[in-house]
Amino acid sequence: MASPGSGFWSFGTEDGSGDPENPGTARAWCQVAQKFTGGIGNKLCALLYGDTEKPADSGGNQPSRAPARKAACACDQKPCSCPKADVNYAFLHATDLLPAFGGERPTLAFLQEVVDILLQYVVKSFDRSTKVIDFHYPNELLQEYNWELAEHPQNLEEILMHCQTTLKYAIKTGHPRYFNQLSTGLDMVGLAADWLTSTANTNMFTYEIAPVFVLLEYVTLKKMREIIGWPGGSGDGIFSPGGAISNMYAMLIARFKMFPEVKEKGMAAVPRLIAFTSEHSHFSLKKGAAALGIGTDSVILIKCDERGKMIPSDLERRILEAKQKGFVPFLVSATAGTTVYGAFDPLLAVADICKKYKIWMHVDAAWGGGLLMSRKHKWKLSGVERANSVTWNPHKMMGVPLQCSALLVREEGLMQSCNQMHASYLFQQDKHYDLSYDTGDKALQCGRHVDVFKLWLMWRAKGTAGFEAHIDKCLELAEYLYNIIKNREGYEMVFDGKPQHTNVCFWYVPPSLRVLDDNEERMSRLSKVAPVIKARMMEYGTTMVSYQPLGDKVNFFRMVISNPAATHQDIDFLIEEIERLGQDL
Amino acid sequence: MASPGSGFWSFGTEDGSGDPENPGTARAWCQVAQKFTGGIGNKLCALLYGDTEKPADSGGNQPSRAPARKAACACDQKPCSCPKADVNYAFLHATDLLPAFGGERPTLAFLQEVVDILLQYVVKSFDRSTKVIDFHYPNELLQEYNWELAEHPQNLEEILMHCQTTLKYAIKTGHPRYFNQLSTGLDMVGLAADWLTSTANTNMFTYEIAPVFVLLEYVTLKKMREIIGWPGGSGDGIFSPGGAISNMYAMLIARFKMFPEVKEKGMAAVPRLIAFTSEHSHFSLKKGAAALGIGTDSVILIKCDERGKMIPSDLERRILEAKQKGFVPFLVSATAGTTVYGAFDPLLAVADICKKYKIWMHVDAAWGGGLLMSRKHKWKLSGVERANSVTWNPHKMMGVPLQCSALLVREEGLMQSCNQMHASYLFQQDKHYDLSYDTGDKALQCGRHVDVFKLWLMWRAKGTAGFEAHIDKCLELAEYLYNIIKNREGYEMVFDGKPQHTNVCFWYVPPSLRVLDDNEERMSRLSKVAPVIKARMMEYGTTMVSYQPLGDKVNFFRMVISNPAATHQDIDFLIEEIERLGQDL
Repeated sequence: MASPGSGFWSFGTEDGSGDPENPGTARAWCQVAQKFTGGIGNKLCALLYGDTEKPADSGGNQPSRAPARKAACACDQKPCSCPKADVNYAFLHATDLLPAFGGERPTLAFLQEVVDILLQYVVKSFDRSTKVIDFHYPNELLQEYNWELAEHPQNLEEILMHCQTTLKYAIKTGHPRYFNQLSTGLDMVGLAADWLTSTANTNMFTYEIAPVFVLLEYVTLKKMREIIGWPGGSGDGIFSPGGAISNMYAMLIARFKMFPEVKEKGMAAVPRLIAFTSEHSHFSLKKGAAALGIGTDSVILIKCDERGKMIPSDLERRILEAKQKGFVPFLVSATAGTTVYGAFDPLLAVADICKKYKIWMHVDAAWGGGLLMSRKHKWKLSGVERANSVTWNPHKMMGVPLQCSALLVREEGLMQSCNQMHASYLFQQDKHYDLSYDTGDKALQCGRHVDVFKLWLMWRAKGTAGFEAHIDKCLELAEYLYNIIKNREGYEMVFDGKPQHTNVCFWYVPPSLRVLDDNEERMSRLSKVAPVIKARMMEYGTTMVSYQPLGDKVNFFRMVISNPAATHQDIDFLIEEIERLGQDL
Repeated sequence: MASPGSGFWSFGTEDGSGDPENPGTARAWCQVAQKFTGGIGNKLCALLYGDTEKPADSGGNQPSRAPARKAACACDQKPCSCPKADVNYAFLHATDLLPAFGGERPTLAFLQEVVDILLQYVVKSFDRSTKVIDFHYPNELLQEYNWELAEHPQNLEEILMHCQTTLKYAIKTGHPRYFNQLSTGLDMVGLAADWLTSTANTNMFTYEIAPVFVLLEYVTLKKMREIIGWPGGSGDGIFSPGGAISNMYAMLIARFKMFPEVKEKGMAAVPRLIAFTSEHSHFSLKKGAAALGIGTDSVILIKCDERGKMIPSDLERRILEAKQKGFVPFLVSATAGTTVYGAFDPLLAVADICKKYKIWMHVDAAWGGGLLMSRKHKWKLSGVERANSVTWNPHKMMGVPLQCSALLVREEGLMQSCNQMHASYLFQQDKHYDLSYDTGDKALQCGRHVDVFKLWLMWRAKGTAGFEAHIDKCLELAEYLYNIIKNREGYEMVFDGKPQHTNVCFWYVPPSLRVLDDNEERMSRLSKVAPVIKARMMEYGTTMVSYQPLGDKVNFFRMVISNPAATHQDIDFLIEEIERLGQDL
């Protein structure tokens, strides 16, 4: 292993690299820099003395080459005490970093170098003159670079290049014109919090190994339950790896509540259980049913009205039908904010039915939960307070970095009874602190990633008022889009009326199709429009928006806005871009 | 919202803050600094001009106070162009950061400030003179700080303080004397990769939104399958949120392979299924069985020998017993590296039995999988190549940051058939690229966190050879510990013989107990020793090691080593510390 002075530290001269016009000033800098902590001193000399030759964007294909980040300090002392000063990454390897002896200097320099790459990416993400994506087909990317894993290490110069290459082809999910997913945007406080989470590198297993994070989860889940409207914020909950798993938890807990013996005896010991959810609900309900041994046939899809809302009378009819067959309805999952239409099921009516038939009411508010933060829009979730459990993903509408999904449960203790296995070798009962803070045994997971800190820190930084402003703004933008296109030539709305969430669903009809009769041929041609426009968007990299078919409706665009970086001008741009890319079709 | 010049940028004078001895040099610095990108220019002036007064460690309890990070630029120009120069965080809020107009300067300054806090923490983590943990009881921490979430935002000064406070009470999981969990250590390249992952802020749903990460998952899983020994690395797999979920996947896929109708029809349509695993296996097998509707009663625990290895003859006996009752054995989960003893089940013998009775063979190598990287130790997993599925957590023995757990499956396509729901609105079939790279539908999750990049980048940086060296070193340290204590007065080994993994299990017997006969009273007193020593360790914060009872064995220490920062001296320290803290008991 190399050590300071053995070759990877190289020393320049005053008349070498650096500020050629002012070597004296530069030397003075380098000396003053040493007074500062935290990786800053590191940066100064190196940057002053030659870190100008950035590596070209190239992957790991090329052989090891002359160092691109050569740097030398022009201090009087040789060797000088500049921590980074003159790091030559081509001669450094991971084994030179902490915990290596003498590893502090190269570690701080290396991490700062990575941060510089990340900061550049962050700035670019918000720059409308950059591409949303530099798209390449899988086989192109696979051929262009050597991504293989080998026996021998690469040097840190190569590692830094991999970071640059990876970001070069990454999609800029924070870009103001990236509308492709329900999760968009890049929140700066959330990002900082996620960096801290990585640095703390622990999990939510016990208070012992994550004291602050466990408390923050407790505080944050309680606050979310208060906002849902459960008295005093009482109840239970957990941050899980995504909304699909949160919904699966709900199903699991609902089943256990009704038939606790299922834990030991399995599904063989219980009657046939039936879950109900709308035909527009998320596929995770069926996925969960398949996994939990309930079976997808036992998930009954309830009809929706033309706006995508569950029809309560159909729900009641199907519940009665199931009961008549001797089956046991055990769960209704209403959706607050469907994936495609952004529809809110009528929660109060659903709650009445669940109460009448004593069925667990779950609300999948993965997408719509954020609206609870807005005094203007929360009425759309009226009745959520009557739910037994709620899925709410702050990583969607609230802009928290991925992943951050909460499952909230009204009854306390149920999660624990349902999932605990009492592994005494993992949850020792004779520890010296209050064991109710050891949350590991109520989870399906053993180790569990810390997902709460980014939400908590963002909440402190924005306040509830800040989330409210964010959400109100996104909904206003959706309405702006709707108002523009509803009467614009070449657009047809998939459903009538103002959007309830930020989802705006529409067809773009190119001029050549506008003259056609509304027949099968037109539908067939229309179905091909959105995929082509989307493919062109990705190839140009200018913007991205999702499309899909749904039921008997052929491919249409689903526009969603969750990124506070988006403006009216970005909406205008999207419309112009769709027309530019689609008018010849 | 504040804007540059409106108050949060404050301007000092030459004779004010800054380098009091050399204001001229300082001014020159500030000007030169502007040439550099990436947040560095930001730092210079601010650091030069007054960033010396760091905030005290205090939470959010105190009212908003005078800014602690006051800084002013002494440039000639007023206002100057120094990006950070003179940021006063007490006057800045999240709304001043990107995407705010003019947000680039404060954003780069703020993120760099956070990074400085993190870099300090990183350096401290490896410093043996710092505490592993500054332990406080839950009620103390709850009372000492105000962690509550409020209506109104806090300023960025307060946000930075929260970062400091959070880390102050965090456990230093990278500390060379932290031996508490199977996952320890803080790898610098892994950390950098995790920061990049956070910055890219996407998920593994489709190639469209995570092109590079999807390819890297493909490459990395293939490499892992090659190492397991499946021909050409063929097969399937996924990175899941932890070993418990990976094991649940295995169970789910094994069930589907035998009875594909279970997906639609549920467990009611299939005979009673039985899974087998050893009495020393991880509790997640039972947890998975409970969740999947199989029931914990249908998980048969096979007896282990005195070293914690599954006894094959007992496995076969229990399989026959189940078959005689008309039940269907569908899964054997052998463990490669048990949680407590670090035992490796005899995989070849288990494979023979699974073949004979046509049962899915799963290997839970969450903890032991890392040994496959070592030519010296991989024999302990001989037979793993005959498994149908393998759980392997690089976040454990390979030191990858949390979370990084892989489930590898020998048969390709099975995961997809088992889990896909064909949600056409999410997985459009008419996209313009090869859809086999859209991995979302084979997962239980919908959105899925990017867990692969840190492993991939570490692998490039260390090479397979680097992981091998890391693992050989940790196992050598465990043997060192074993050799010291096996004959040392006051120690009793829980099982005889050299450890096979890094697990070393032992009782420390204080002098007062050494004279007692081996009776119930002694056992009762011995059971209280480890908890008291552990509590004292945490209160001193000097080191941490786990303890637990197991079967008829009262509380004993389970020492594990996965942190390459640990040395022989740290092992010596642990022994001395146990004796120092336990000799009076």
